[in-house]
Amino acid sequence: MISEYQARCQARVDAALDALFVAPRPELTRIYQAMRYSVVNGGKRVRPLLAYAACEALGGDIARADGAACAVELIHAYSLVHDDLPAMDDDDLRRGQPTTHIAFDEACAILAGDGLQALAFEVLGDAVRNPQDVDTRLAMVTALARAAGSAGMVGGQAIDLESVGRKIDQAALENMHRHKTGALIEASVRLGALASGNADTTRLDALSHYAKAIGLAFQVQDDILDVESDTATLGKTQGKDEANDKPTYPALLGLDAAKAYALGLRDQALAALEGFDANAEPLRQLARYIVERRS
Amino acid sequence: MISEYQARCQARVDAALDALFVAPRPELTRIYQAMRYSVVNGGKRVRPLLAYAACEALGGDIARADGAACAVELIHAYSLVHDDLPAMDDDDLRRGQPTTHIAFDEACAILAGDGLQALAFEVLGDAVRNPQDVDTRLAMVTALARAAGSAGMVGGQAIDLESVGRKIDQAALENMHRHKTGALIEASVRLGALASGNADTTRLDALSHYAKAIGLAFQVQDDILDVESDTATLGKTQGKDEANDKPTYPALLGLDAAKAYALGLRDQALAALEGFDANAEPLRQLARYIVERRS
Repeated sequence: MISEYQARCQARVDAALDALFVAPRPELTRIYQAMRYSVVNGGKRVRPLLAYAACEALGGDIARADGAACAVELIHAYSLVHDDLPAMDDDDLRRGQPTTHIAFDEACAILAGDGLQALAFEVLGDAVRNPQDVDTRLAMVTALARAAGSAGMVGGQAIDLESVGRKIDQAALENMHRHKTGALIEASVRLGALASGNADTTRLDALSHYAKAIGLAFQVQDDILDVESDTATLGKTQGKDEANDKPTYPALLGLDAAKAYALGLRDQALAALEGFDANAEPLRQLARYIVERRS
Repeated sequence: MISEYQARCQARVDAALDALFVAPRPELTRIYQAMRYSVVNGGKRVRPLLAYAACEALGGDIARADGAACAVELIHAYSLVHDDLPAMDDDDLRRGQPTTHIAFDEACAILAGDGLQALAFEVLGDAVRNPQDVDTRLAMVTALARAAGSAGMVGGQAIDLESVGRKIDQAALENMHRHKTGALIEASVRLGALASGNADTTRLDALSHYAKAIGLAFQVQDDILDVESDTATLGKTQGKDEANDKPTYPALLGLDAAKAYALGLRDQALAALEGFDANAEPLRQLARYIVERRS
């Protein structure tokens, strides 16, 4: 069951994340609280799960991927804090709770996001929190920096903001998502694979294919859920995308075709794992879960 | 003459920085333009100069410090973009030019800052842009992440925002500046020293003492200039600190005592370099320049 595996990964990464937010001086209490608030919030931890599952898929001990799991979640968390800001998506609610700039203030939310990004790289560089050899730690830093930056996640956000209110085709929508969410999902899998100590080019490539397919599937399903779910289940304002005139898969393809597309992507992800043994079962289950989830 | 040395460092780091902002895809043109605009702006490049000069002070070739110089300037540039945002200091002018959120828009400025931070770590991890052994590159990543994050620069910004309109004493003001500007200045010197390939604990400690003293001197002088200079010379709105009711050294100590304090810090910085040979001359000249500059 993916839910048991997910709960185990969630507990594991939550414990590791929780330990990161101890203010070293009393004057820093508020910024550390804002950072903790932005991260320790009952999130699903899909990216940490991917890191753990990719590590296991290559026969690695899950404990080796704690640093990778924390780092990718810190980047994800910072991106949500900044995305929710009034100048960006202007969201007051995230996972049913006030967003960071509402619970604290806007300046504090900007700084908390900035601090979370720096912390991700600090964790990867730290021999205790990320007990890998130096080459592996540095490879993780470089992969995460590329995925998080302007050629990856940040670039995708920029493309997304420019797309609001414009008619774009499926290729353009896919390109946006490949940057905005796909790059970090792929990095999660790659960092987890690197953490196993058993990564080779062939299997890293296969895992990248897997990650690209589920990354897109995740987004297509998110768009579907935005249309179908109510606000209570989703923990965020429903129909927000449509209200903002954002391009979505259901708007572009129709709801049924969007659902079929998500299922096809799941199958591509499973095909990419054909050469993997039973250790890759969590990755397979996740591919199925992504298109079946209701929130 | 520090101005010649500064011009040489500036040209060197500007060339290296300029090469970083080539959009890999046409859709990313605007975010790359915003990042470039935020960085390639005729800045004084004090932090890169510190990295180069620290590298030279330990007998290293200046070319080895290009990666360190770029990385610290990228962090500095991102912090300015975010500091200038309406929710933070709300500045429309920086170095006589419209700030990034004015020249582009607020969302783009937030993202450009985020992208610049990621780029700093990408540059440090890159064997071509930062041609050091793997251990040195990783040590640089960790040092910069700590200095830039919530226990360093970001934390200092948070303390600063909480201090506005409050009476604080000299110790609290100094603690704020140690975080807000001191941490990155110290990191600039340390990264440059690491780049030399000749860093040992004793000399790294001496350089840290030097950096702490000039970091504070730089801030005291900034506060003095904010009182004394006119807007045209300074390239930013004069008297801004006072108008915002921000704590400053002249307000706390009086203008004359603030000037004497800056000179004392310069002398501390020079004393820290007593064991260094003529290769440390640029660092010495910089210590003098900081308290003599008029903008």
